[in-house]
Amino acid sequence: MTTETTPGPSLVLYHAWASSASRKVRMCLAEKGLPFEARVVDLNRFEHHQDWYKKLNPSGIVPALMVDGRPLVESNFINEFLDEAWPEPPLMPADPMLRHDARLWGKYIDDTCLPAIQKHNWMHHFHPMAREWSDEELERRLAAIPTANRRHVWYRMARDPYTAEELEAALDILRDMMDRIEARVAATGWITGDAYSLADIAATPYVIRTEELAPEEVSPEKRPAAAGWWSGIKARPAYKAAHMEPFNEQCWSGWTPPA
Amino acid sequence: MTTETTPGPSLVLYHAWASSASRKVRMCLAEKGLPFEARVVDLNRFEHHQDWYKKLNPSGIVPALMVDGRPLVESNFINEFLDEAWPEPPLMPADPMLRHDARLWGKYIDDTCLPAIQKHNWMHHFHPMAREWSDEELERRLAAIPTANRRHVWYRMARDPYTAEELEAALDILRDMMDRIEARVAATGWITGDAYSLADIAATPYVIRTEELAPEEVSPEKRPAAAGWWSGIKARPAYKAAHMEPFNEQCWSGWTPPA
Repeated sequence: MTTETTPGPSLVLYHAWASSASRKVRMCLAEKGLPFEARVVDLNRFEHHQDWYKKLNPSGIVPALMVDGRPLVESNFINEFLDEAWPEPPLMPADPMLRHDARLWGKYIDDTCLPAIQKHNWMHHFHPMAREWSDEELERRLAAIPTANRRHVWYRMARDPYTAEELEAALDILRDMMDRIEARVAATGWITGDAYSLADIAATPYVIRTEELAPEEVSPEKRPAAAGWWSGIKARPAYKAAHMEPFNEQCWSGWTPPA
Repeated sequence: MTTETTPGPSLVLYHAWASSASRKVRMCLAEKGLPFEARVVDLNRFEHHQDWYKKLNPSGIVPALMVDGRPLVESNFINEFLDEAWPEPPLMPADPMLRHDARLWGKYIDDTCLPAIQKHNWMHHFHPMAREWSDEELERRLAAIPTANRRHVWYRMARDPYTAEELEAALDILRDMMDRIEARVAATGWITGDAYSLADIAATPYVIRTEELAPEEVSPEKRPAAAGWWSGIKARPAYKAAHMEPFNEQCWSGWTPPA
């Protein structure tokens, strides 16, 4: 995971293997060929809600990238930082209109697709654990969570699991994401403009999960342009280097990358 | 509002005078000395929920900036576009770590401070109108709103107004914003790094409203560094050019800037 390139600041990534936001940052680091130290935050043990981690990321979510000991948060902004600090290969378009488009796409992924994926990921992995908590344990767990949004989601995992209708609506959001990718890729070959960029990286972890949850949505029969684009993404050396292994294998701790 | 500078793309801003996000973009345009055509979107007449406007901004919110006929949305990203398309005077730091900080600050303002301000602004201005709607009119209004978040806020304006506790909690968020500004400005003179930037512009409309709602929070007795910074912001020619008049005067249509 750490190959020598040019000297620079020390990079330490606090992450989880199966976390979509963490995968985004690993993919960008791999594209840049940047050496970094990867430290797994054990979500099963709620390390992300512990005080030491909340000092790095006050929202209590992964990832956080330490740059010479200073923490950076928010995966889209971390990746834009990486692109500005290490401009080669460029991962943002040069044209300001397209740069705006790439940022807007990143915000769409985070604000709209992340909550949709989260419903499926968390029902699969956290609900079976959280539903067993006593009221006392639930209160204790919630008290450690710094944001109202995440407290709400954890409460739902414990006491009010997502319904079949909600899970289907979440899948519809991912289908719509695939429609948007199809339209963009059919037009220019990539999500933003005519080159690979942080916009493609932002979508990658979400397409991984969409393919796992509903493979037909990523099939060439249904969306030929997107399927071709997706084959290209999965063939990138950075995809392998970033360890985009199946969700179930990486979920959420105890997994280590193959040597 | 439109003074001649260098030739460039045509800029048309769809905005509302009292909207915080619109004010942010007007401030940036004024700092850059860019000529633009300002078109008011009449929020009282729900023009932002009409199909023609949702073609420009699919979220049905102001502002939208047309650049040679192509719409850009999201005030933070619009301002970053303006800074990249017209680099002088620079409104983002050069250092990638500080650029990350400015982006994170903009996201904090939008995700945390905007919903807090909104509670006060909308209770003041929209609740007295929306509470009079019949169930039929409410349904019709909600059906035109493209995002679940805004539908929810409009429902609350009509049928479930914010409580005194919620309004006080919102004010606490603004007090915390002022604490953060005080700490940053005391350290370096500005919100991000040692120069005026889009981070200061992002905060400006929120400090205006905080001063109107709770003047003591912006007083030199309570927060000396922030108060000094704020005097400097209000003295900027761009502040005058952007027409940051009192909220009540500009609220929400029918107001025209003094000649």
